[in-house]
Amino acid sequence: MKIVCDGLDLADAVMKVSKAISNKNVNPILEGIKLSTDEDYLYLTATDLELTIENKIKSEIKIEGDVVIPGKFFGEYIKKLNNEQIELTSDDSNNLSIRYADSFGKIQCYNASEYPTTKKLDFDNSFEITQKDLKDLIQKSVYAVSTDDTRPILKGVKIEVNNSLVTAIALDGFRLALNSKPVRNVSNSCNIIVPAKSLKEISNLLNDSDDYVKLNIQRNYLMVEVENTKISTRLLDGEFINYKQIIPSAFATNVIINKQQLENSIDKAMLFSRVDKNNLVKFEINDKIMIVSSHSEIGENKDNISISLNGKELTIAFNARYFSEALRVIDDEYIKLSFNSSISPCVITGNENTNFVNLILPVRIS
Amino acid sequence: MKIVCDGLDLADAVMKVSKAISNKNVNPILEGIKLSTDEDYLYLTATDLELTIENKIKSEIKIEGDVVIPGKFFGEYIKKLNNEQIELTSDDSNNLSIRYADSFGKIQCYNASEYPTTKKLDFDNSFEITQKDLKDLIQKSVYAVSTDDTRPILKGVKIEVNNSLVTAIALDGFRLALNSKPVRNVSNSCNIIVPAKSLKEISNLLNDSDDYVKLNIQRNYLMVEVENTKISTRLLDGEFINYKQIIPSAFATNVIINKQQLENSIDKAMLFSRVDKNNLVKFEINDKIMIVSSHSEIGENKDNISISLNGKELTIAFNARYFSEALRVIDDEYIKLSFNSSISPCVITGNENTNFVNLILPVRIS
Repeated sequence: MKIVCDGLDLADAVMKVSKAISNKNVNPILEGIKLSTDEDYLYLTATDLELTIENKIKSEIKIEGDVVIPGKFFGEYIKKLNNEQIELTSDDSNNLSIRYADSFGKIQCYNASEYPTTKKLDFDNSFEITQKDLKDLIQKSVYAVSTDDTRPILKGVKIEVNNSLVTAIALDGFRLALNSKPVRNVSNSCNIIVPAKSLKEISNLLNDSDDYVKLNIQRNYLMVEVENTKISTRLLDGEFINYKQIIPSAFATNVIINKQQLENSIDKAMLFSRVDKNNLVKFEINDKIMIVSSHSEIGENKDNISISLNGKELTIAFNARYFSEALRVIDDEYIKLSFNSSISPCVITGNENTNFVNLILPVRIS
Repeated sequence: MKIVCDGLDLADAVMKVSKAISNKNVNPILEGIKLSTDEDYLYLTATDLELTIENKIKSEIKIEGDVVIPGKFFGEYIKKLNNEQIELTSDDSNNLSIRYADSFGKIQCYNASEYPTTKKLDFDNSFEITQKDLKDLIQKSVYAVSTDDTRPILKGVKIEVNNSLVTAIALDGFRLALNSKPVRNVSNSCNIIVPAKSLKEISNLLNDSDDYVKLNIQRNYLMVEVENTKISTRLLDGEFINYKQIIPSAFATNVIINKQQLENSIDKAMLFSRVDKNNLVKFEINDKIMIVSSHSEIGENKDNISISLNGKELTIAFNARYFSEALRVIDDEYIKLSFNSSISPCVITGNENTNFVNLILPVRIS
């Protein structure tokens, strides 16, 4: 292989695909990035066998070929180079030479034949969604996935596609997040479960534009292509929890509250309750005021927040972290908190925007 | 104690004094910040018994008093508050109440009587230097101190004050840094050894202005006051190495080189040599070119840098880290490297500015 490309393009491509590099140290070659050539492009590919990211950059291909470079090292090295034309040459002993200006580098690489091949997928199914909506869909659901290895299916987000709507659902046994967005050109309704890590990397590729992206689904795979980057991920296989029966439809207590004020108070509550490691925050909902409080051996904090209450007064407690994570992804100025009793879940929605639903189980207090 | 002050002022003061909080966990009260009142000011003091930082903020003092708050916790808490008037009240049980707007916090504190008292110092000796020069003096010396606990005196920087010049010297057995600056109003010539950590904190207080600051010296202490912050530090006691005989005065090889180019090449060299943990970088000095190279099992890098050579050609090797740290604090566009042989030290100075001297011992290569 012998190619010439732009140093900045190369550094950018290495950074993008590096996210798929395996950090599990199972197989050293998976810590590498495969470089290969095709027509006027240099292709960079990284995979951890679940998530695969591929990026292509315009290059002058002098000799076709491929090689697998140590990913992390090459990433650091390439960052130190400048915006110059860089020449990459691989030899028969899998050494990659990097030449630019008065600099010469040589890196010991792996033989590309040992790298897992990515099979060509035929996609049965697809739909389109704007980049902005897909980003929001992921952001407002993925934080609620489980981190518990004993129920691997809950480490994924369920994506349900109907005629004109896509819904993402994540839950971990203590809270649930659900978010819906419009879609177009749906070939078939479908339900898939996508690993959270893969969704986060897809989200990182997206901007806030109204440009449509196409999501392609094969039985076991999801693939998205944005500009020069292609992400494909294996899907999770298994039975997801029937979430619909978890979300209450009627409530005894409804509160409208300023989101930023509640977030600040939860923040302070976490600081105190963290000391006792219980993360407990208490809400006392009265006519016009909600008192948000926490205490621990180091002290206590108590904030009064103005609210508009519709329904019964209530005292209820939560793990502050679940509230904090739910509020962080909401950008509405006012939100609605809905309750039935101190032992049933709280549902958080936008005051007007009800596309997303966050549900949090309370903690019993004496 | 009962006072009212501005929240931002308080947060800023807590941040500044926090640098002196002990992180050695020897005595819990040293993890605290002492709050005390005097006339129209709230005083904040933190000390690790070596370094003491005190800051004062304008406050409305309603009831005089003092209390010691848990420093790290209070620092995090105060950051979450806003730019509002804050009322602090301490009670007889050493609880500090924090009130602002609709928020109420209470923190369990220590009794101030258990906090070490800072003795009033009478200073024998003083001199003045501009903030800019003091900052530069510290920055270009302090990085070269030893981190070796077996020779504690080398964890300090020697400061020599003569009639009109202050010189700072640090060395660790492998390299040496020396920097001189003009001073005024010197009461007496003196030599002191200041702990590196204290100098770094003094440097953090300074800006790049031509305003003079006064350094006050008592037998065992150095004190500097900048605006509302006062830093005092114990001095180190012992015999410093006679550094003057270490610095050669004549050289066989003199090289003028672009500082940024050398720094970039050293950076790349470190990336490769780090893999073998020897950090070795080799210089091959020829007529118009210096080749900067390194290699390890992962590969190699070789840069050609244009130089102007005066004297003999030479091949010599160094620990790249020492070069990297020396170059980082130099802002000259061109620097001078001076050598005698491959087993004697390299001296780095500015091409024109020779106030600072960095000396680095070479590594023998076969």
